[in-house]
Amino acid sequence: MSSPAIDGVGTTEELGALFSDDSILAALLLVESTAAQVQGRLGLVPARAAAAIQEAAQPREFDVAALARGARDSGTLVVPLVAALRARVASLDPASARFVHWGLTSQDVSDTALVLIVKRARTLLATTQERLERTLRARSDEHARTIMVGRTLLQPAAPITFGLKIAGWYAGIHRSWNRLSHAIDAACVLQCGGAAGTLASFGRDGLTLRRSLADALDLREGDGPWHTERDRLAAMACACGVLIGALGKMARDVSLLMQQEVGEAFEPGGGSSAMPHKRNPAACAIALAAATRAPGLVAAFLTGVVQEHERSVGGWQAEWPTLTSLIQATGAASAALAGVAEGLTVDTGRMRANLDTAGAALFSEQIVMLLVPALGRERAETTVRDAIDRSRRTGAVIADVLKAMPAAADVLTAEQLARIGRPEEYLGSAEALRRELLGSA
Amino acid sequence: MSSPAIDGVGTTEELGALFSDDSILAALLLVESTAAQVQGRLGLVPARAAAAIQEAAQPREFDVAALARGARDSGTLVVPLVAALRARVASLDPASARFVHWGLTSQDVSDTALVLIVKRARTLLATTQERLERTLRARSDEHARTIMVGRTLLQPAAPITFGLKIAGWYAGIHRSWNRLSHAIDAACVLQCGGAAGTLASFGRDGLTLRRSLADALDLREGDGPWHTERDRLAAMACACGVLIGALGKMARDVSLLMQQEVGEAFEPGGGSSAMPHKRNPAACAIALAAATRAPGLVAAFLTGVVQEHERSVGGWQAEWPTLTSLIQATGAASAALAGVAEGLTVDTGRMRANLDTAGAALFSEQIVMLLVPALGRERAETTVRDAIDRSRRTGAVIADVLKAMPAAADVLTAEQLARIGRPEEYLGSAEALRRELLGSA
Amino acid sequence: MSSPAIDGVGTTEELGALFSDDSILAALLLVESTAAQVQGRLGLVPARAAAAIQEAAQPREFDVAALARGARDSGTLVVPLVAALRARVASLDPASARFVHWGLTSQDVSDTALVLIVKRARTLLATTQERLERTLRARSDEHARTIMVGRTLLQPAAPITFGLKIAGWYAGIHRSWNRLSHAIDAACVLQCGGAAGTLASFGRDGLTLRRSLADALDLREGDGPWHTERDRLAAMACACGVLIGALGKMARDVSLLMQQEVGEAFEPGGGSSAMPHKRNPAACAIALAAATRAPGLVAAFLTGVVQEHERSVGGWQAEWPTLTSLIQATGAASAALAGVAEGLTVDTGRMRANLDTAGAALFSEQIVMLLVPALGRERAETTVRDAIDRSRRTGAVIADVLKAMPAAADVLTAEQLARIGRPEEYLGSAEALRRELLGSA
Amino acid sequence: MSSPAIDGVGTTEELGALFSDDSILAALLLVESTAAQVQGRLGLVPARAAAAIQEAAQPREFDVAALARGARDSGTLVVPLVAALRARVASLDPASARFVHWGLTSQDVSDTALVLIVKRARTLLATTQERLERTLRARSDEHARTIMVGRTLLQPAAPITFGLKIAGWYAGIHRSWNRLSHAIDAACVLQCGGAAGTLASFGRDGLTLRRSLADALDLREGDGPWHTERDRLAAMACACGVLIGALGKMARDVSLLMQQEVGEAFEPGGGSSAMPHKRNPAACAIALAAATRAPGLVAAFLTGVVQEHERSVGGWQAEWPTLTSLIQATGAASAALAGVAEGLTVDTGRMRANLDTAGAALFSEQIVMLLVPALGRERAETTVRDAIDRSRRTGAVIADVLKAMPAAADVLTAEQLARIGRPEEYLGSAEALRRELLGSA
Repeated sequence: MSSPAIDGVGTTEELGALFSDDSILAALLLVESTAAQVQGRLGLVPARAAAAIQEAAQPREFDVAALARGARDSGTLVVPLVAALRARVASLDPASARFVHWGLTSQDVSDTALVLIVKRARTLLATTQERLERTLRARSDEHARTIMVGRTLLQPAAPITFGLKIAGWYAGIHRSWNRLSHAIDAACVLQCGGAAGTLASFGRDGLTLRRSLADALDLREGDGPWHTERDRLAAMACACGVLIGALGKMARDVSLLMQQEVGEAFEPGGGSSAMPHKRNPAACAIALAAATRAPGLVAAFLTGVVQEHERSVGGWQAEWPTLTSLIQATGAASAALAGVAEGLTVDTGRMRANLDTAGAALFSEQIVMLLVPALGRERAETTVRDAIDRSRRTGAVIADVLKAMPAAADVLTAEQLARIGRPEEYLGSAEALRRELLGSA
Repeated sequence: MSSPAIDGVGTTEELGALFSDDSILAALLLVESTAAQVQGRLGLVPARAAAAIQEAAQPREFDVAALARGARDSGTLVVPLVAALRARVASLDPASARFVHWGLTSQDVSDTALVLIVKRARTLLATTQERLERTLRARSDEHARTIMVGRTLLQPAAPITFGLKIAGWYAGIHRSWNRLSHAIDAACVLQCGGAAGTLASFGRDGLTLRRSLADALDLREGDGPWHTERDRLAAMACACGVLIGALGKMARDVSLLMQQEVGEAFEPGGGSSAMPHKRNPAACAIALAAATRAPGLVAAFLTGVVQEHERSVGGWQAEWPTLTSLIQATGAASAALAGVAEGLTVDTGRMRANLDTAGAALFSEQIVMLLVPALGRERAETTVRDAIDRSRRTGAVIADVLKAMPAAADVLTAEQLARIGRPEEYLGSAEALRRELLGSA
Repeated sequence: MSSPAIDGVGTTEELGALFSDDSILAALLLVESTAAQVQGRLGLVPARAAAAIQEAAQPREFDVAALARGARDSGTLVVPLVAALRARVASLDPASARFVHWGLTSQDVSDTALVLIVKRARTLLATTQERLERTLRARSDEHARTIMVGRTLLQPAAPITFGLKIAGWYAGIHRSWNRLSHAIDAACVLQCGGAAGTLASFGRDGLTLRRSLADALDLREGDGPWHTERDRLAAMACACGVLIGALGKMARDVSLLMQQEVGEAFEPGGGSSAMPHKRNPAACAIALAAATRAPGLVAAFLTGVVQEHERSVGGWQAEWPTLTSLIQATGAASAALAGVAEGLTVDTGRMRANLDTAGAALFSEQIVMLLVPALGRERAETTVRDAIDRSRRTGAVIADVLKAMPAAADVLTAEQLARIGRPEEYLGSAEALRRELLGSA
Repeated sequence: MSSPAIDGVGTTEELGALFSDDSILAALLLVESTAAQVQGRLGLVPARAAAAIQEAAQPREFDVAALARGARDSGTLVVPLVAALRARVASLDPASARFVHWGLTSQDVSDTALVLIVKRARTLLATTQERLERTLRARSDEHARTIMVGRTLLQPAAPITFGLKIAGWYAGIHRSWNRLSHAIDAACVLQCGGAAGTLASFGRDGLTLRRSLADALDLREGDGPWHTERDRLAAMACACGVLIGALGKMARDVSLLMQQEVGEAFEPGGGSSAMPHKRNPAACAIALAAATRAPGLVAAFLTGVVQEHERSVGGWQAEWPTLTSLIQATGAASAALAGVAEGLTVDTGRMRANLDTAGAALFSEQIVMLLVPALGRERAETTVRDAIDRSRRTGAVIADVLKAMPAAADVLTAEQLARIGRPEEYLGSAEALRRELLGSA
């Protein structure tokens, strides 16, 4: 887990472990070791060297702090890691040390290790997403008929169903995860090019080696070196950013619904250090913290895409902290909201009470459109404003107010009056739209 | 064209016109007018009102500066635009004015107009991209055998072909345009939900109206309201950012190749105000300026994705300047590089001369790998360093130097020696990789 | 005004005019013209040429769209502008045309024009800020004793005064404006270096010319060329970003207070296109839209700071749209909130009602701390949770509930009980802190 | 050190230790412990409790991974830390546990710990900056007369001195460090407000406690709570971004000068994993990686500035990873460039050779200005272009070429001809400007 004291809420337990120093070292060493095995099988290096390298490539034996110091001399962790691996192989079998990192360049190892880890992260993310999406679908169905205030610019607008609102969250999150999932698949490509990307050090065996290495690591072989064409990684970083945004939208809504004064829905909540009774939207805070950080992290990744020639000065070296933060933030937000969705308490009574309080205002669009054909826009709007004011002042329901106003009473039919002011009669296509959203791709 | 004095290099002539005030007003009015026609056909508003609205919706008759002032009162241009349109309809046919903007919400009009314009932008972008990609493929083929220095961290690494380098640019740009093209398609969805997204104001006719409006505007009907689910727009903004990055990478490379001291390739170039002879990488500067701006613009868009409830306070209102800048910057960079690709002058003599100057250093990986099995890593590396130094000092070709060094001469075969130091013999799979990259998707 | 249809809410009337094409052309021509006058006085160019240049430099005579097209060839507006100015001078006095842009480089003109405009923007911003800050101080004093719910993580925490809350807004905004004001002052430095920044084209007269030009333009002379050292502009861009953030914080709070369910304070508000009665937080939306865009714009500027050698490829060319957007967004947010502050309606009754609804929960910290010394942490917290529950269930005031609970009644003195649950008795140092904040620098 | 495998090049040894889990835990515990001591002295808690808390607050006894897990429930590390500290105190002295975290809120502890660590970081940064700035001044003096090609848009423009170039780096870096240094000072303010920022839990002792706590921690007392007014932290984050930009500019320049084809200046350099002879701009890469990441990190911080009411949902929780990354990146870039400056090898011969290669082109501005008064702009420019072409083709020095061209020979005096084409005669005010820049503030 990376720096829990600073960024504990920016990851999950599993992702923290995946992006830990140990795990990353293991991935880097796996690439070196697998390359040696494959080269051994192809006769490019002695079988004995391949075996010695595999034996030596034990992550626990390496001092990551020392490697980081070395990285500051060369700009990449791989240079000191290769040196350390050579030293360890030499101690096992001096003649084999020379075949460590045979024909590869640092970025081959670094990029491939990154891709291996990201691929595993995808599995972890998928599990959480599946949990979140399944729960959202169920909650949306459950609340298909739960009527609540629809709010625009934080003001009451017109009635909606809570099921429709949840379906909106679902659709945004589901589409965004689909995008990310595909972006990860597309980005998980072996990097294997050697010093300048031509595989020249392997002579005619370059493509064979690449194919075998891809097979051994269960990665796609790809379509040419991508040392300085980072669009696939960038698209993945962006897709994290978009998904986090969709998760952040849900978290913002839940945190607003959870306000004492609104009181319509509550996440299970987290405690306060000073106030024992307090239930804070702690999981929403984690998702919103991710949404606060993600846009800048995406920008950081995109800035680094402009890379020089066959290996860049700066752009490449900037990628790891950005991408690993983004992926972990995605998982943190997704996991937090899976918990929110599962534990969400809904106060339908309060939803109804807030509808009542909003009252006539929720139907101003409805009434205006009924009055406008007869009265014209201006008189219709004046009439509605008057009626809403009267309804607020007197507490009378809006239909009764309108009945008492000649301008309106002359225009509205009994049937129309019977429907005005009843939220369940002013939901339009909410249910059809909800179902559409649950089917959104 | 939007603010040419400030951002003339951030757009193209055509995109500037598409995103001009006139064009945007026209798109907003087209949505209002088309909605009225469709509603007229469906009997939701009188046919006469539909006709009057269509007649009144002439962009030239509206004062955009006055509308912008009005927008500062309501937070959106649509509110004052609807008022102005009503006034114009009233002057043509007072009874029809009331049916302007019938049952729609401001964001329905604003989002749909945005999508209409973006769809047209896609066509403009596609034309330029097609030109750029076709040219890059041709230039890559043309230079399939043009050998040059491959550079990592701006230092000579090993020989590559210019065709491979161009194929790398092509692959990154091509994949990124594919992504953007799909993202635009996915985002071009009608927005039609009314006050709270339920289409309630149209009663049972909501979905019919939506379908008819989508047909009339040639947009996809969509799958539910997306007033506050902005992931599709965000994905489009991101895809612009990634493509600009891929374009920026090519521009960075060309501007570096064009340095007097490198002198290998030149864009047609732009002039200086002070130095008549000077040929500046002006088109590269335009692409790199786009690449400088794009990551932050993407971040700005992503920040706004966290939108409240059924219409947001701030997030939505922030979208237009960001998205329109991104799309125009994409076009500006793409057009600039299409010109670069078409007009690129390549100095193959200078490429060869730079290979010669880099000399022995380009083959250090090659020689090390030939010596290592016999000498071990350390002696091999020392020998190579020595040989490169001698070659540099004496000007002797590296193969001759090695022949004179017993450590090396004992190990290397005549055939190996014959190949060492000849760039055309050390290209590995460059040509196969080049072809792969041209086929990349 | 720049592109009102796209970004009308991203500026003000005055700033829009200042950053209009006409105004920017005028500033660029003013630099050319003033340079000619100064050079005429110093005898570097003929007096007659200086006069002709001044006469020709009329912004209305230039076609900005054509200049923008020219800018796409050279990467900067100045190259075509100089050509156009030369042509105009030539039509007045052919012999004088040759002295247009004498010894300057494009960036000298462009940077100096930018600085001239920014300096004027500072005056406009200062007026609005002064209005906003003065109003906030007055409103804070006015509400020094208005008690309201303090909210942490959007949940009721403990009582505060509205005066304290406003003072917090004031302090953040005031400090941030001070920073921006100083940053603008520091950045408003003449750029005058010629082709490579050495003033070589003026021989020994370089520093004299620079001093005279600075005097004539009322700019600081500076301390060396800053063609590629953009830290002062960057610091200014950042200071815009921080101020917009502080303004955004106030806007977020007001928009939350304005929710129907909270109902404590209201900006004058903007209308809806569909719902006549609706009062939207339109001014807050403008400020929050600025706060959504600003971080990315700051990032875009910072990205461009890494500029090559004596004039950059891309970084410089990216600056204008970013910086001008940031300054205008600052003004838009500040003006919107000045209107909010001046027109703010405060519902003190609702504040009191919300205090009552929050009820016992607001005092949990207070009661816990009174009980803990006697009961220990765990029992104290349990007791408080119980008491709050009972108070909520029964509607009894918290002091009475505690009196009826032996665990608490045994511990609390009559005096303590008399103070518990009375917000005006649990304000701590609110008033002293409020005064501190109003004095914050 | 935080996550060396991912971000080893994003920090220094010392800063890595300062921002390690251990160090951060220690700072958080120091705040809790010091608060207890001060409260003990003021009689707010028993002296015995203060002693027990101090004894228990040993960072090594806490499990940071477990705390991070707890943080995911409450959104902040402080809640589980307080629980763990209470448990530890209870095991030493049960009666004292209740006084842990007395009257404080989580954010008081978290913000104050952050500020304590940042203050220590400032000292580390200052040492490195002092080293860098001192070296740059010395190198600038050393190369006051070293003439080199000035390059605009990466093309030769006119001669400059290397001393002037270094002075430009110095000025940008020095001003930016001054800004950051002041921003850190301004931001290092105690946070002490309790649940809602009013210090209510301390009754009348609030301000006394705050003063005493500030004294004990050697922090400024401040001017009111800043729980949701983050402008001072934001200004600090921005100042990091600007300084990193100024450092990045120097790194970009050095990496460009170090290209084999330019070969004018070299950092000591880092090695390659595949090519033994290769000297990479590894330190520049570290600085440029910081410059790639910083703008987005600044944006992330600014995005979080819009915080709700008295404690935010998301904005606050996002700050730590961003700010700590920025500060460490600043130190990493500064340290890398201090090494570059100290170890910089300058090849003055190559600088002279590149001047010669650029040749006549460097003097086009000079010659044009000499010819224009007599020949007019067009003929002057044509003549210069011709002369440069001839000089390039024939290898003749430009003055001789001009002598042979009647158009020029008739106009230029012997003295003028004697100076044309001699870089040392075309440096203008370079030396005066260099001195100004070294004095820049």
